[in-house]
Amino acid sequence: MRFDLVSLFPDFFTSPLSSGLLGKALAKKIAQVHFVNPRDFATDKHRRVDDEPYGGGVGMLMKPEPIFSAVESLPILPRREVILMTPQGEPMQQRLLMELATGYDQLVLICGHYEGVDERVLNLVTREVSLGDFVLTCGEIPALALINGVVRLLPGTVGKVESLKAESFEAGLLDYPQYTRPAEFRGWKVPDVLLSGNHAQIERWRKEQQIQRTRERRPDLYEAWEKNSDIVSE
Amino acid sequence: MRFDLVSLFPDFFTSPLSSGLLGKALAKKIAQVHFVNPRDFATDKHRRVDDEPYGGGVGMLMKPEPIFSAVESLPILPRREVILMTPQGEPMQQRLLMELATGYDQLVLICGHYEGVDERVLNLVTREVSLGDFVLTCGEIPALALINGVVRLLPGTVGKVESLKAESFEAGLLDYPQYTRPAEFRGWKVPDVLLSGNHAQIERWRKEQQIQRTRERRPDLYEAWEKNSDIVSE
Repeated sequence: MRFDLVSLFPDFFTSPLSSGLLGKALAKKIAQVHFVNPRDFATDKHRRVDDEPYGGGVGMLMKPEPIFSAVESLPILPRREVILMTPQGEPMQQRLLMELATGYDQLVLICGHYEGVDERVLNLVTREVSLGDFVLTCGEIPALALINGVVRLLPGTVGKVESLKAESFEAGLLDYPQYTRPAEFRGWKVPDVLLSGNHAQIERWRKEQQIQRTRERRPDLYEAWEKNSDIVSE
Repeated sequence: MRFDLVSLFPDFFTSPLSSGLLGKALAKKIAQVHFVNPRDFATDKHRRVDDEPYGGGVGMLMKPEPIFSAVESLPILPRREVILMTPQGEPMQQRLLMELATGYDQLVLICGHYEGVDERVLNLVTREVSLGDFVLTCGEIPALALINGVVRLLPGTVGKVESLKAESFEAGLLDYPQYTRPAEFRGWKVPDVLLSGNHAQIERWRKEQQIQRTRERRPDLYEAWEKNSDIVSE
């Protein structure tokens, strides 16, 4: 998988891309990350990449030309998606990460800055993705989250395939509570069932915990899961 | 505002915290970021911070003691929140960022790793926050998003107060399309209304665009906004 980051602040990514499991995956060449800076494609002598919005309003917008030129300078792999990271986009979800991890060879990620980007950039874009319903100062963080979530799904990043399967959202439910040593810590004990060695019982308990937690904390996910399990069991 | 990052990978944060608008805000001392590494509080000779889950299953969990000791080593400011970044938490939204930016002096952020943290860590935590319904390899990215979104709301980070107010989600709607120079780019023109100089008309057009976009792309947000504007107008 090839990632192309269209970013005014490529230095942002230096330490996150060399740290932890993602750093290891990139060192193993499971994915490649390339950078292209729209500022290098600004045509005026001040290398301006932003300008005032038409119609008034505060803040500055990213101009269209440097972004077009930056993206057009990139090689084109067969299965390619050009993604604008924007709060106006499709909310990032596990299903989307899975689709991107399995269906594409190249993901071009455009990181917005200032108050946003000129609307005409959408002519260049095949998908808009939002990290969530909140506002950040830059699109670099959403792009980093997308890279991490996609690379995590590529073969070789996470040790065992099972380690992926079991996790939250891939089953449509929140995760069950997990405990490790010591069996008693400051008076708080690990639930007896987990020490029982009875695997069928443990599995049942975990599933119940997942369902109960999801119902209590995330009625929206619970409802979708219930609807889905009706279909499966019919 | 003081942030304390409880992280096994403090190096992750080096470049993101010194880049862009967030880097500038931290340089201006609008907020302070401190680090504490649970590994420094591991008590065995191998400095282990993770262990196998009780009841079986793949992957490793973060042990409770090093996290407790790390958090307990921190100073305590009057209005403090201890937040575990976890997909099981409350989904991050603009309202939550606003609450954290205005109601607290200190945010302690615990970044999970491996398959998660021992459930007993919740005894230490006042809030669980999720970046979204997807799985990442680490809690550092969600913590970074939270810091960015909160610092953005602190006085002095973004130039003008209006620049905050107008944006997506703070009004419950997606943003309107924005355009900057040139007025024509590769045959795509800026909508006439934005060049008209008629401010009332521009404002009306923008509001209509916001409503239409939100209805088309995010029926969930649109429904909430509609319900809310009924209440306001009653």
